[in-house]
Amino acid sequence: MNVYKNPIKTEWEDILKRPTASYQDIEPIVSDVFKNIKANGDVAISHYTEKFDGVSLNEFKVSVKEIENAKQLVSPELQQAIIQAKDQIAAFHRAQVTPKVSVENIEGVHCWQEKRPIEKVGIYIPGGSAPLFSTILMLAIPAQIAGCKEIVLCTPPDKSGAIHPAILFAASLCGVTKLFKIGGIQAIAAMTFGTVQVPKVYKIFGPGNQYVTVAKQWATRYDVAIDMPAGPSELLVMADQTAKATYIASDLLSQAEHGPDSQVIFVTTYEPLIEEVSQELLAQCAVLSRKEIASKALENSKMIFLETKEAAVSLINQYAPEHYILCVSEEAYYLDHLSAAGSVFIGNYSPESAGDYASGTNHTLPTNGYARQYSGVNLDAFLNSISFQKLTAKGLQSLGKSIELMAAAEGLDAHKNAVSIRLNDLRDGA
Amino acid sequence: MNVYKNPIKTEWEDILKRPTASYQDIEPIVSDVFKNIKANGDVAISHYTEKFDGVSLNEFKVSVKEIENAKQLVSPELQQAIIQAKDQIAAFHRAQVTPKVSVENIEGVHCWQEKRPIEKVGIYIPGGSAPLFSTILMLAIPAQIAGCKEIVLCTPPDKSGAIHPAILFAASLCGVTKLFKIGGIQAIAAMTFGTVQVPKVYKIFGPGNQYVTVAKQWATRYDVAIDMPAGPSELLVMADQTAKATYIASDLLSQAEHGPDSQVIFVTTYEPLIEEVSQELLAQCAVLSRKEIASKALENSKMIFLETKEAAVSLINQYAPEHYILCVSEEAYYLDHLSAAGSVFIGNYSPESAGDYASGTNHTLPTNGYARQYSGVNLDAFLNSISFQKLTAKGLQSLGKSIELMAAAEGLDAHKNAVSIRLNDLRDGA
Repeated sequence: MNVYKNPIKTEWEDILKRPTASYQDIEPIVSDVFKNIKANGDVAISHYTEKFDGVSLNEFKVSVKEIENAKQLVSPELQQAIIQAKDQIAAFHRAQVTPKVSVENIEGVHCWQEKRPIEKVGIYIPGGSAPLFSTILMLAIPAQIAGCKEIVLCTPPDKSGAIHPAILFAASLCGVTKLFKIGGIQAIAAMTFGTVQVPKVYKIFGPGNQYVTVAKQWATRYDVAIDMPAGPSELLVMADQTAKATYIASDLLSQAEHGPDSQVIFVTTYEPLIEEVSQELLAQCAVLSRKEIASKALENSKMIFLETKEAAVSLINQYAPEHYILCVSEEAYYLDHLSAAGSVFIGNYSPESAGDYASGTNHTLPTNGYARQYSGVNLDAFLNSISFQKLTAKGLQSLGKSIELMAAAEGLDAHKNAVSIRLNDLRDGA
Repeated sequence: MNVYKNPIKTEWEDILKRPTASYQDIEPIVSDVFKNIKANGDVAISHYTEKFDGVSLNEFKVSVKEIENAKQLVSPELQQAIIQAKDQIAAFHRAQVTPKVSVENIEGVHCWQEKRPIEKVGIYIPGGSAPLFSTILMLAIPAQIAGCKEIVLCTPPDKSGAIHPAILFAASLCGVTKLFKIGGIQAIAAMTFGTVQVPKVYKIFGPGNQYVTVAKQWATRYDVAIDMPAGPSELLVMADQTAKATYIASDLLSQAEHGPDSQVIFVTTYEPLIEEVSQELLAQCAVLSRKEIASKALENSKMIFLETKEAAVSLINQYAPEHYILCVSEEAYYLDHLSAAGSVFIGNYSPESAGDYASGTNHTLPTNGYARQYSGVNLDAFLNSISFQKLTAKGLQSLGKSIELMAAAEGLDAHKNAVSIRLNDLRDGA
């Protein structure tokens, strides 16, 4: 990791630069797959599944029997763990249900706001070496609490046409309504347009490689929303003398093992930690199964010593971290002055892994500084707010003159007329 | 308007089709302006302001003196109307403040969610014949309630380099922090990248012509969020025998006058209304100042008679209207079964104009069927949700085994290790 001691503020932008990727090469591929899926539906899905996943399939839907069999293949301990995580995630997201907002500021002018579920949502779960069943919990549980009627999940099959049993177990536990063996760009395109087998959805959630990332962005050109733009995962740890170097190193490594483009930032106001954490990183990294990925990620990563808490808070806000571990004595100061982050982990016993799996918070979070303008996935991501208003004759009489004046000043006669015609009736009739 | 009586369900998609626009011709222009603003900043803004707005400016910021002068030029009646609208909008958006969500489902595992304002937001207000000061109220008031530090507004100058006094009055009343005489693509690009004179913002709000629409979409390729994708404005009126044809016609026209591509749908379960409303439309349209625009919009528009309330609700949900006027005796049935709409106006005394200006609800709403997956602008559009977790030793001990099992099953050793290292310490130490 690169070490910076008391860098001046004008250098921060450079130090905090994220690794960037250009996706321009991928756009033509994505555009082609979308065109083909739109034109040829399931036949095109078969074609790409053979090409990219190496398996020939004509039916993509996972059968009830496959789901039942999966249960036998997941150890009872892992099933228990998944159920405990589900309970935690459900409790936290259920608490996010907001009551109807209702206002009658002027008599007879009643305005309210209610939320309704997005009817059809899609979830993408990547394949590859590790089955990311934890992400199913993070997306299907709030979708179910929100009341989404259709919860579609796509995930790539392996070469034998199967899906990992832990994926099937988690999906059936969390209320996924339809599960398809479709991966990559073709999965995103299928959920965007709909095919005979795959329903069209209104919003697509979930992580993925660069192809899936570009495909999700591409889907927004059609009438589909996405959870948020994606970027490589990242962690910032802020620590003082109350933190432990062993814990910090383990947390930095848990982020670094995600991929060679993961970014890890360590900020401290206690200078000796820089050396201690460096030593621990070397020792702990050496015994990891994914040590090559982790060391590669650490090369892009930074350790920053800053003299004061004011400087530290200012730098952290400038970075707007996806994951933010805070292990300091003056916790309240740091929390009060925080302006942007995805999820915050506080104290010595809150590793990022806790939130990744089981504390209850969501792990689908804004990377790449997007915490400045996007929230992580939460219950509201599956709901739309609708506003309502009901005016009585008296209510319209109270506001009518203002509306007429404003509409006239904006040059919108018919807007004014819609009020005048009613006010005239009320004058004549009353 | 085109009339359909009891169309069968398979025909609905065709009937409800929105007028579509292709923006592919505009993209190269937008791309060029963005490149030029990014490279040349304020100099490029001057160039485009001269080219598109016909005025030579080197300083874009509106001065305090210009704002003070504006007050003299807005009639006291209009000032009063704007202030009444502000009070209503502020009351409704202030009521949307949500308390901190806090959960401790397992002892020692405390999770909470708090909202923080997006620090810097941008508002675009179109120029042209009518000064859309009402949109300033809709965007700046919630931004101020949310606590956004920087509220930047861009609007094109007229040929003398001035801004309409009602725009300046509304902006200064609602807490806009910086106001610039910049229009079109160059305004969106300036707020996306920042220049010497114009601050970079994190999220851009507001309506505009097709150039601004494409520019906002283009801005999302950089690290800027936007309120929502745009499309032509639209209204659906649902009425039965309790409604009045004169009011319905006035509401349909208030939508139709927005532009020739505005769409208006009238649905009724009471057949005689079709004829009555048609007559009223002719009579009322004839005397409007914008009658040519309105008649053009009516050509794209539809009147649909349906036998049952079940069919009506189903068609309305399929359309997902931006504005939805509901004037029926069985109000509760229609509201309970509504799945998607932007803003709903209920009863004979709730014309769309009420919500456009002064009832308190927001008028920046999802068009084009986007109500299926996007909310209209509300207080939350200016806030980010951040999740927090703080585990005690006991909390981590309760969840630790589940996290270790799940991390191991996903093949993420370092994630597991971050927990194991802490649990080992606790076992040894405790």
